[in-house]
Amino acid sequence: MTSEIAWDVSEPLIAHAPLEAKPRLMQTGPATYGRNPVERYFLSELWQLHLYHHHGEVRLRHEELWSGTEIVCPIRPGAVSLLPPDTHSEYRLDRPGGYYYAHLAFEGTRGAGVPVMQYLDHERVGVEGLFEEAIGLFESRVWRAEMKIWELVCRLSERVATGSAEAAGGHPAVARAQQFIALRLDQPISVEEIARESGVSHVHLNRLFHAELGAPVKSYLTERRMSRARYLLTHSQQSIKSIAADVGIPDLHLFNKVVRRHLGAPPTGVRAADVSERFPAGK
Amino acid sequence: MTSEIAWDVSEPLIAHAPLEAKPRLMQTGPATYGRNPVERYFLSELWQLHLYHHHGEVRLRHEELWSGTEIVCPIRPGAVSLLPPDTHSEYRLDRPGGYYYAHLAFEGTRGAGVPVMQYLDHERVGVEGLFEEAIGLFESRVWRAEMKIWELVCRLSERVATGSAEAAGGHPAVARAQQFIALRLDQPISVEEIARESGVSHVHLNRLFHAELGAPVKSYLTERRMSRARYLLTHSQQSIKSIAADVGIPDLHLFNKVVRRHLGAPPTGVRAADVSERFPAGK
Repeated sequence: MTSEIAWDVSEPLIAHAPLEAKPRLMQTGPATYGRNPVERYFLSELWQLHLYHHHGEVRLRHEELWSGTEIVCPIRPGAVSLLPPDTHSEYRLDRPGGYYYAHLAFEGTRGAGVPVMQYLDHERVGVEGLFEEAIGLFESRVWRAEMKIWELVCRLSERVATGSAEAAGGHPAVARAQQFIALRLDQPISVEEIARESGVSHVHLNRLFHAELGAPVKSYLTERRMSRARYLLTHSQQSIKSIAADVGIPDLHLFNKVVRRHLGAPPTGVRAADVSERFPAGK
Repeated sequence: MTSEIAWDVSEPLIAHAPLEAKPRLMQTGPATYGRNPVERYFLSELWQLHLYHHHGEVRLRHEELWSGTEIVCPIRPGAVSLLPPDTHSEYRLDRPGGYYYAHLAFEGTRGAGVPVMQYLDHERVGVEGLFEEAIGLFESRVWRAEMKIWELVCRLSERVATGSAEAAGGHPAVARAQQFIALRLDQPISVEEIARESGVSHVHLNRLFHAELGAPVKSYLTERRMSRARYLLTHSQQSIKSIAADVGIPDLHLFNKVVRRHLGAPPTGVRAADVSERFPAGK
């Protein structure tokens, strides 16, 4: 006996897909539902990604995920579903409606949360565009079509993550601060500027950084600069003066001091420890 | 002794990068050139992707690729260079100018043509956006940053390919027709419609299809429908009537005939040949 519940749209219905490797795309294209009043589908082994252009209703059932309970989800233009393998779906439509589909195989094990069903607003155009590019590329260059679908599924996953801090593992102000720092790492910037750009106060941003990254903003910034400096010292032949400027500490005296403290040796020492094997004499 | 030539911008300067697998991103960020009137760089093992925000000049030298000849390329905002490993570069700028850089390791062997230096027009905003997203994601989720850079490099490669038919291996009208067919595969469409959408005449489109794909448009279309039908018959549990409609041949009698001719068996036969192993009894 199957119990049935109407899905509470405010509670995301999540499945876990390993997004860190490009999925294989088995088939993709346009299709039509609702030629019959009730249509049932089942796909074992593969994930089904659908972007709907119409209104209707789908009933989902999955023995493991929802212990066989049937979940009733509304469909409207801009709705997207990503059904894990072995999901039973039953569509009810008043009249035929088109949609795009893609059948995917994810490779890998670590799964990120992706909503089984969600409704796009302003992101719809971008997502639809990626889907159409994938459909158009599928026959000629499947790896390129796979890249488009992969990007699409990542966006679906991030869209939910942005909504709730726990899911994303991050406060949006911290993410904004990290982006701002990354894009200006070659310039001297103050914590005040970073806080202003992130839309929260200096004090609050430091509290958020502590909670999420275990260090205040200033330490995080220095860490980033030093990580970049170590890389440039060991991978490039740039002069130390030029590296100092590229990591936002143009004062060479200060740069030497900070490198010594954080990397355990002066710049020439960090470089020498690595340089002999990377750049044989003469290069 | 190094000979020196000014690069003829109309002749693309091409290197071959294996684009079919996601590259590894070793480092990415903003940086500044031109603190000194002449600056020299060299990176062994890694590719260097640069998007410039300034005007200037770069001299490139690569023993293997250009037999040591020094090639002089102008730099302006929107210029992008992708230098293969072991390229020597020498920058000459009147005053400091910013740019974004990424250091990449490509995995794989088959290389697609990518321009060593090109100048973006309307694509600049999109490419710059991808670069900034990559820089922002690099510290927190490097695989996501790698996806952005991969997409960026693919676009750089396709941008050149679009310009010349040989490089791309395809006439743009054929690509447009293929995209149109893929997006309407669930509908009956005529060759006239496809030609209209592709911007060339029926006769000319058939000639192009023959030259590139070895078959006229009509055969290509049927092939696509049958490839989709075979997949749906063997991978889904959709009814044959519904599959017929989904591949744009809703007339069941005609669908049976076409399947029999192209797949060597009637729909039930195609399905039976595969179904026993994929859907064990009870599913």
